[in-house]
Amino acid sequence: MSRTAPFPLQLTIALPDWVRHTVDPGVQLHGDEARMRIAINLARENVVRGTGGPFGAAIFEAGSGRLAGVGVNLVVPLNNSCLHAEVVAFMTAQAGRQSYTLAAPGLPAHELFTSCEPCAMCLGASLWSGVKRVVWAATRDDADKLAFDEGPVFASSYKYLRRRGLSFTPEVLRAEAQQVFTLYGERGGEIYNA
Amino acid sequence: MSRTAPFPLQLTIALPDWVRHTVDPGVQLHGDEARMRIAINLARENVVRGTGGPFGAAIFEAGSGRLAGVGVNLVVPLNNSCLHAEVVAFMTAQAGRQSYTLAAPGLPAHELFTSCEPCAMCLGASLWSGVKRVVWAATRDDADKLAFDEGPVFASSYKYLRRRGLSFTPEVLRAEAQQVFTLYGERGGEIYNA
Repeated sequence: MSRTAPFPLQLTIALPDWVRHTVDPGVQLHGDEARMRIAINLARENVVRGTGGPFGAAIFEAGSGRLAGVGVNLVVPLNNSCLHAEVVAFMTAQAGRQSYTLAAPGLPAHELFTSCEPCAMCLGASLWSGVKRVVWAATRDDADKLAFDEGPVFASSYKYLRRRGLSFTPEVLRAEAQQVFTLYGERGGEIYNA
Repeated sequence: MSRTAPFPLQLTIALPDWVRHTVDPGVQLHGDEARMRIAINLARENVVRGTGGPFGAAIFEAGSGRLAGVGVNLVVPLNNSCLHAEVVAFMTAQAGRQSYTLAAPGLPAHELFTSCEPCAMCLGASLWSGVKRVVWAATRDDADKLAFDEGPVFASSYKYLRRRGLSFTPEVLRAEAQQVFTLYGERGGEIYNA
């Protein structure tokens, strides 16, 4: 007799119900701040509604400004350490495009907007996702102050990714994303990777 | 009218049906080679059955040798660049344990066996997963030769992770995993992140 449960061979990843009432999937937004506000709103709502960590992400078509995918951190509620907001956003966007890369022929350029500088996992995932640009609000230092670790990311990591054609824009609406971290801390939110 | 499809807010991640007939979830195995053979068998079957890339992974309880989770690469069939074998293995193991970390209090130490050296995403994911040790067969160079990129992983990445308590064992049954790569190349398998 095993004292541990068997493991499933099928998983369901569902975003919280409030997401469909909070985000208009047909929205078209121009400018980094307008797009980032979607990611930060997702992060804030995730904290307020108690459905996960203080992180949100959204993927947009660079030119048209069409929303292509969204994500919130689902690590704690879904018992899944891989479900950072960025990973969830890549998954929803690729499922919508029915392509394992957002850089597939015929697709417009896509950009990731995330409420916090990506961790090592999500930075790696960005390369495989096919997004051309990664934009973030709060920084690694901001996450560190909340006791979230960001993993092995170095200046050489960004250099590697730039050589692969990605570009990076830090600190868009940083203060707004920091406020979400503060809110999470005040509410005693779980630090799942301290 | 958008010319692109909307995106789903719920996703299902199902391992191929053959996995349940190939892997005994109640197996207990001792020794790195026996455990690695499970990961490599998953990789090989994934190629033979045409259900994804040439990569497999398995998670074991270090002491008891109980199998805790399995994964195969599902990037192409599920249109999801995040579903590397290691990520799928973390997800199934954590779902089985109903914990977002395999290092939760009361759980035994867990180890990841993967048929290939982890990419940048999967190395970052290893830290969040709670596994204590990562064992691989084929190397980054082997993957490179097949034209798979491994992303920004450096000596400093491993140093960072060792400081966080992880250990690494390379090249267990490397030749067997290389054979799976050769098979994939011969069959004209898709290189989805060249």
